Amino acid sequence: MCTQIDSGVVCESMTDQKRIVLKPIGYVRTKAVGDEVKDKGRTSQIVIDSEFSEAIEGIDGFSHIFVLFWLNQVFAQSKMLKVHPRGREDLPLLGVFATRTNLRPNPLGLTLVELLGVNGNVLVVRGLDAFDETPVLDLKPFDFWDMAENARVPEWWTKLNREKSGRS
Amino acid sequence: MCTQIDSGVVCESMTDQKRIVLKPIGYVRTKAVGDEVKDKGRTSQIVIDSEFSEAIEGIDGFSHIFVLFWLNQVFAQSKMLKVHPRGREDLPLLGVFATRTNLRPNPLGLTLVELLGVNGNVLVVRGLDAFDETPVLDLKPFDFWDMAENARVPEWWTKLNREKSGRS
Repeated sequence: MCTQIDSGVVCESMTDQKRIVLKPIGYVRTKAVGDEVKDKGRTSQIVIDSEFSEAIEGIDGFSHIFVLFWLNQVFAQSKMLKVHPRGREDLPLLGVFATRTNLRPNPLGLTLVELLGVNGNVLVVRGLDAFDETPVLDLKPFDFWDMAENARVPEWWTKLNREKSGRS
Repeated sequence: MCTQIDSGVVCESMTDQKRIVLKPIGYVRTKAVGDEVKDKGRTSQIVIDSEFSEAIEGIDGFSHIFVLFWLNQVFAQSKMLKVHPRGREDLPLLGVFATRTNLRPNPLGLTLVELLGVNGNVLVVRGLDAFDETPVLDLKPFDFWDMAENARVPEWWTKLNREKSGRS
């Protein structure tokens, strides 16, 4: 059961009676439209709501942050369970959790971005693949526990990545 | 405004009239209690709800995945905006978004784990710092766009990390 409060929603958790609150902590500002948002070289802004201004103090000690955002362009809970990566039928049909598709049961986006600067309550970032006005839910500083240098990725991923590098 | 549907909640987005759905896709199973969950060497399980079984097909092509989970041990939206990392007053007082504290406006956890195996709808992972029965919201395969080898981190982080390495 959920009820509306001033600027968010309070829900009974589905698993217990504790209460959780989901509310945007800010919004994305970008001039990029359509596929332009996928350009890793682009900069965009994250405008933090004034009530959370204090919560970004010290974030500029990190060069990179994870941005968690709400894929509010996805209209409803996706019922898709399998997809071809980037819609390409020459690549295997895979479970959505084996890909980074937007069509996910919970429309949560996660992107590692470079933090170029902080001006008051505005973060300037590079590489955020989110549209203008996307609600931001959380920011997490990137550290060396977040990477796996010797990670194994599947062949289809390597193929896609090689094509991308070839283009740029 | 939110309404309950069979196994989730449908909300009007706070920013527009599109609808979003939040529902657990599975749950954590672990015997670790208290601080034991922080032990990076521990294995735990993620039991995927049967309705999403198909959605993990192919995930075993990746050695590492990000787990997004609900910090359901955090009772309510935290009002904390600043914290000392790990509660240590010898370290600077920082905005919560400059740290990985659990006390966040939106109680969302994010951890990179090693995927050791998949047995039916159960993932066996190493390094997940989540308690037993934690609701899991999303899984995202780790790839090389998720890392920044030359990232800059602040001195307090390096200090904490050095201490941790010294102990193990």
